[in-house]
Amino acid sequence: MSATLAADEALARRQRAGEQVLSLASGEIGLPVLPALRERLAAAADRNAYGSVAGSPRLRSAVAGYWGRRNLSVDPGLVVCGPGSKPLLFALLLAVGGDVVVPVPSWVSYAAQARLVGARPIPVPVLPGEGGVPDPAALREAVARARAAGRDPRCVVVTLPDNPTGTVATAGTVERLARAARDLDLVIVSDEIYCDLVFDPADRAVSPAAFAPERTVVTTGLTKNLALGGWRLGVARLPDSPLGHEALTRLVGIASQIWSSTAAPVQSAAAYAFEEPPEVVGYVAAARRLHEVVVRAVAERFTAAGAGLAPVRATCYLYPDFEPLRDHLAGAHDVHGADALATLLAQRYGVGLLPGTAFGEEDRSLRIRVATSRLYGGTDAERFAALAADEPARLPWVKASLDRITEVLTDLTTL
Amino acid sequence: MSATLAADEALARRQRAGEQVLSLASGEIGLPVLPALRERLAAAADRNAYGSVAGSPRLRSAVAGYWGRRNLSVDPGLVVCGPGSKPLLFALLLAVGGDVVVPVPSWVSYAAQARLVGARPIPVPVLPGEGGVPDPAALREAVARARAAGRDPRCVVVTLPDNPTGTVATAGTVERLARAARDLDLVIVSDEIYCDLVFDPADRAVSPAAFAPERTVVTTGLTKNLALGGWRLGVARLPDSPLGHEALTRLVGIASQIWSSTAAPVQSAAAYAFEEPPEVVGYVAAARRLHEVVVRAVAERFTAAGAGLAPVRATCYLYPDFEPLRDHLAGAHDVHGADALATLLAQRYGVGLLPGTAFGEEDRSLRIRVATSRLYGGTDAERFAALAADEPARLPWVKASLDRITEVLTDLTTL
Repeated sequence: MSATLAADEALARRQRAGEQVLSLASGEIGLPVLPALRERLAAAADRNAYGSVAGSPRLRSAVAGYWGRRNLSVDPGLVVCGPGSKPLLFALLLAVGGDVVVPVPSWVSYAAQARLVGARPIPVPVLPGEGGVPDPAALREAVARARAAGRDPRCVVVTLPDNPTGTVATAGTVERLARAARDLDLVIVSDEIYCDLVFDPADRAVSPAAFAPERTVVTTGLTKNLALGGWRLGVARLPDSPLGHEALTRLVGIASQIWSSTAAPVQSAAAYAFEEPPEVVGYVAAARRLHEVVVRAVAERFTAAGAGLAPVRATCYLYPDFEPLRDHLAGAHDVHGADALATLLAQRYGVGLLPGTAFGEEDRSLRIRVATSRLYGGTDAERFAALAADEPARLPWVKASLDRITEVLTDLTTL
Repeated sequence: MSATLAADEALARRQRAGEQVLSLASGEIGLPVLPALRERLAAAADRNAYGSVAGSPRLRSAVAGYWGRRNLSVDPGLVVCGPGSKPLLFALLLAVGGDVVVPVPSWVSYAAQARLVGARPIPVPVLPGEGGVPDPAALREAVARARAAGRDPRCVVVTLPDNPTGTVATAGTVERLARAARDLDLVIVSDEIYCDLVFDPADRAVSPAAFAPERTVVTTGLTKNLALGGWRLGVARLPDSPLGHEALTRLVGIASQIWSSTAAPVQSAAAYAFEEPPEVVGYVAAARRLHEVVVRAVAERFTAAGAGLAPVRATCYLYPDFEPLRDHLAGAHDVHGADALATLLAQRYGVGLLPGTAFGEEDRSLRIRVATSRLYGGTDAERFAALAADEPARLPWVKASLDRITEVLTDLTTL
């Protein structure tokens, strides 16, 4: 079971049982649906035909426009829609076949999906402060070793910007990764679902599609920028190359056998979203600002408590490393790894977050992933207020969570 | 690519190009959304949380109630929702593992899904007039042979009532199938998506869950009885046994890694549907009557043309066999198998339907599958009128299609 979803459900059970909990586990974006999108979905409630496997022509055109505005022009015929970017990633791994290189750390589902399709993940560490992209030099070595051992790596997954670290690999690193993938004849699957959630335009992620356009598949969705995880819609952009056209045929074939098509009313609202009218752009901008303020406020507290932490440049995640506090955690709490640390935080403090092991780290590592996207309020009114606030960290419900984090970290690191 | 969806898209392209086409290929139900369900979906457009992987508590309870009213009582905790019954079937095959026995003929996707997960389909013919259930005696032999050859069959798929034949296996056959599955230690996956579309209550399908409750997984969805294919929602009922609980854990784990959860607004409307308020029951009854009238009218025309045909007892499908016309088809049209027959019908007459080969038949067979669910009208007004009509076959647009079928079959069989 997906570690994120499992942690989420466990926390929801504790909450229903009346416990005070602080949910920092799930990357679900706790923000309300943009009213214009709600209306579009309602207006499309009469759509009950399957439609095309790859998605409606209007949606595919809208998505092509969206990518075109991000220097990733694409023919709508190379856009494929699915019920989330997660199923698209799964189907892509199945379409490409072979073993899969995954960054360490990386999102919980890449390696799990690889195993489900009978492949084996090949873990390659990222460079410091540049999560989501395997160190290109280490990638070359790992693939050479794997091939020498008779394995068949055909694909490398990257996350730009990155979950779990909230960092963005530099263009130089991405270019070296793309070159390595070309030399090694690997398909690059670039998960860019956080691409609209980079705080400083100067930090914006450069897609490997800029450097290896013939072999890069890009995916995104509505889950993160528009808080529509529960609507389940993702899209993939296939490369305009022989490899890309072959992958497209396979991907659509696999999609037709696994999920047929994506909920038609959702496709209709999604087309509107990808067309990026002003209210959509405004919502994403407001959400990005809110993420930035809150994730940085939380990051400050972890840094103040003595955890190591690369600057967070995007998303609503931070990935603190308690290595500097190892002796204290061992002595005071008998905690020697991130699993035990996460368990302690959940059981003693009601704080849900994920251990680095869920992202492929070794047992001994003291890294944890903290998601701040559930701190924006408990009601739609609070969440809309958070989106509109000049200083969201001062809103009483946000401040209460931040104070609670300070309290827990103080208790954890000084007792 | 799924043969049904491919045929559908090819026909849509011809139609857009201005050709007159008659769509008998896709099992998509050409009926409008029940207004009460449209309203429920619209009212749930603000639901954007992932929710539980297995589905919302309200939906799972509603589904348990639905099955309870069909002598298949189940704890809501053993109900799993997914974005269509198709992805649930795929995940079930992955969860059970091993090779899969499929009936011949059977729905296009079972064998394809088995291949996608690295399993091999083991085809077993059905008994005459009892589609959807492998002949139990032949099943025993096939599994014994497969095991002797080192293969690992662990699962048998059945369809009750059946697509493509529109027939319903008798309770006796289902019981013998269930007994064979128990003796052979096979999981039974019983696709019962057509269970509400049996014309005569006396013909109602008996689920293998009645005879082998410990090993039968039942699936259904909203696609067929409520014409909601484009909404993408299916459900599975796991057995209350050690095997069932283990399968549940695996299934939910796989679902969490492939699709996370099912579109939340759709779940909300689906819960209402599975609660079966009077308007839902009324809609399904009207749709069933309409299917019965039209599918029988079409069946008469194939019988009159000389094709062999088992009586259609359910669904909107018929599966005529042109074997009695083999000599004529060979002599007049150089047609020696169902693929060529389907191609001829598409190219000369603009009639789209599926060759039996798509359902696992041999190349030489002259069986084809005809779906009548697209004949109800070209607009929502026509389709509502068809649902309400006392004599839908006399509605001008339905009659025109029936007349066209007569014309095509006359031309085909007498020229």
